[in-house]
Amino acid sequence: MKTIVAGVDIGGTNTVVGLVTKDGECVGQTSFSTQSHSSFNKFLEQLASEISKLIKSQSIDYSLSGVGVGVPNGCYNTGNIVDAVNLKWKGSLPLGSGLESYLKVPVIVTNDANAAALGEMLYGGAKGMRNFIVITLGTGLGSGIVVDGRLLLGSDGFAGELGHTAVKAYGRKCGCGKSGCLETYVSAPGLRRTAFKILADSNEPSALRNYSYNQISAKQIAHLAEQGDAISLEAFEYTGAILGMKLADVVAILSPEAIFLFGGLSNAGRLIFEPTKRHMEKNLLSVFRDKVQLLPSGLSGENAAIIGAAALIWQDLDNN
Amino acid sequence: MKTIVAGVDIGGTNTVVGLVTKDGECVGQTSFSTQSHSSFNKFLEQLASEISKLIKSQSIDYSLSGVGVGVPNGCYNTGNIVDAVNLKWKGSLPLGSGLESYLKVPVIVTNDANAAALGEMLYGGAKGMRNFIVITLGTGLGSGIVVDGRLLLGSDGFAGELGHTAVKAYGRKCGCGKSGCLETYVSAPGLRRTAFKILADSNEPSALRNYSYNQISAKQIAHLAEQGDAISLEAFEYTGAILGMKLADVVAILSPEAIFLFGGLSNAGRLIFEPTKRHMEKNLLSVFRDKVQLLPSGLSGENAAIIGAAALIWQDLDNN
Repeated sequence: MKTIVAGVDIGGTNTVVGLVTKDGECVGQTSFSTQSHSSFNKFLEQLASEISKLIKSQSIDYSLSGVGVGVPNGCYNTGNIVDAVNLKWKGSLPLGSGLESYLKVPVIVTNDANAAALGEMLYGGAKGMRNFIVITLGTGLGSGIVVDGRLLLGSDGFAGELGHTAVKAYGRKCGCGKSGCLETYVSAPGLRRTAFKILADSNEPSALRNYSYNQISAKQIAHLAEQGDAISLEAFEYTGAILGMKLADVVAILSPEAIFLFGGLSNAGRLIFEPTKRHMEKNLLSVFRDKVQLLPSGLSGENAAIIGAAALIWQDLDNN
Repeated sequence: MKTIVAGVDIGGTNTVVGLVTKDGECVGQTSFSTQSHSSFNKFLEQLASEISKLIKSQSIDYSLSGVGVGVPNGCYNTGNIVDAVNLKWKGSLPLGSGLESYLKVPVIVTNDANAAALGEMLYGGAKGMRNFIVITLGTGLGSGIVVDGRLLLGSDGFAGELGHTAVKAYGRKCGCGKSGCLETYVSAPGLRRTAFKILADSNEPSALRNYSYNQISAKQIAHLAEQGDAISLEAFEYTGAILGMKLADVVAILSPEAIFLFGGLSNAGRLIFEPTKRHMEKNLLSVFRDKVQLLPSGLSGENAAIIGAAALIWQDLDNN
């Protein structure tokens, strides 16, 4: 019987489950709506049942070695989800222990950015690297930090909250309750906020002036920027400047050999990479200049989150 | 024959050498002027000779196991001092390999803040802690970061340059060539700069108005603040606000269980601790609130730097 690991990516809308081999290949996948259940226990029950069904549906006979779960506000140390803003169930949710009691295999939980970082190290562009950072750019900004070959978890398992470091005192309101957090500037919604501020301040004609705030997406702003829309281009320049300055600070603290940009906004390619790299270099202490690579994720987009989550277990099996 | 380790603290003015036992006791000490020699090699020669003489002068027969050196811009990975702004010898100086060839024992070099952090872990207030940070507050601001029981060195050995992260774009000129670095606000000279800015903006009577910029020290500003001088008190409040905000960001990234303030400015006690703690808590992400201790160093001030430097070797011997 071949051993297999389940990788789970819990998002506010969908939960995706995949079966991942030791080589990082996703051999089967399914998904279901995350919040269709009234209680967290019912959700847990369905998650366990979906994993079991997925294994049974394969043509090969697999034995499940463990489940890795990436979820916003997932805590590595406790296995709990704590105060996740994008889930309707509040407080501390015992995801790890709950799933273990259903499936009788080890479950490791962490936030989605940490999972992405482990996936990058085992199967992506960070193979062989000992010190690197993965920045996830989506509806928020997450970060997974690897120090000396190991995930940086901190004293309570919550390290890596780069998205909630300060850009500006009394800056933009953040979902976390604070103001001026990095993710209010650098994320898909952050880009939109920036575009609308620039639009309001300038006289420049722009296709953006025909969209409502609720109509336009970061992807569309990227599309307009590619067509030469000046305000959209300026919004990317500003976003890259803020991210680049913050990454220069992060380099001064952690001295990584590479920083990977992962997810949604990173797909804008040169539009986000070029200004970010330029402003990072400009703000780096001289000892770090021209040393740190800024790279796109080496994981294929569609299954990246699942493969990263499964890597939590495969790395653990490797180390034992 | 009893084994002993030499701890060396190289400052811009004096170099202090001590012999430190495994229990962190300093049994002998000497010092000499750092920059009296025209060449770095002559300095190395004297350093080696001072260590040998110090061992011979002891009543007990000691065998030297190694030398740990704390020096600004000292690189753990290479053993070199790189572009130290407070030394007259420029470029990359081969301190580790040079000293090894004189003394024929292992030499470990790192910056003074990393040495302080190891000292704190082995002999000070961080005994038993796995994740903590030491902030050195003197003429600059240094930081030594311990992650999961090990010094965070980063890919090139230069991690921990918190003093050169950004407080303000286009802020105060820094010795590193950048502007707005944390250490231009939070350090002994930073406090003086702040006091003189507040003094210029306000009408408040203050004893500070009788001193020239070159006359007044951070220690004197602390003394005036203790006597109730309003501008001096406001300078500490501002310094603590800047440090507290930055520490909240550092906690979000690293999630330490404690942060220690070490050296010069930390001796101002409540004047610096109280506003720093208050502004740190105010800016923390909710998941980190009321969790992180802000503590004075547990090492006795006078020999702390030497004991920390020696800890580099003692920890290494312990791990082998």
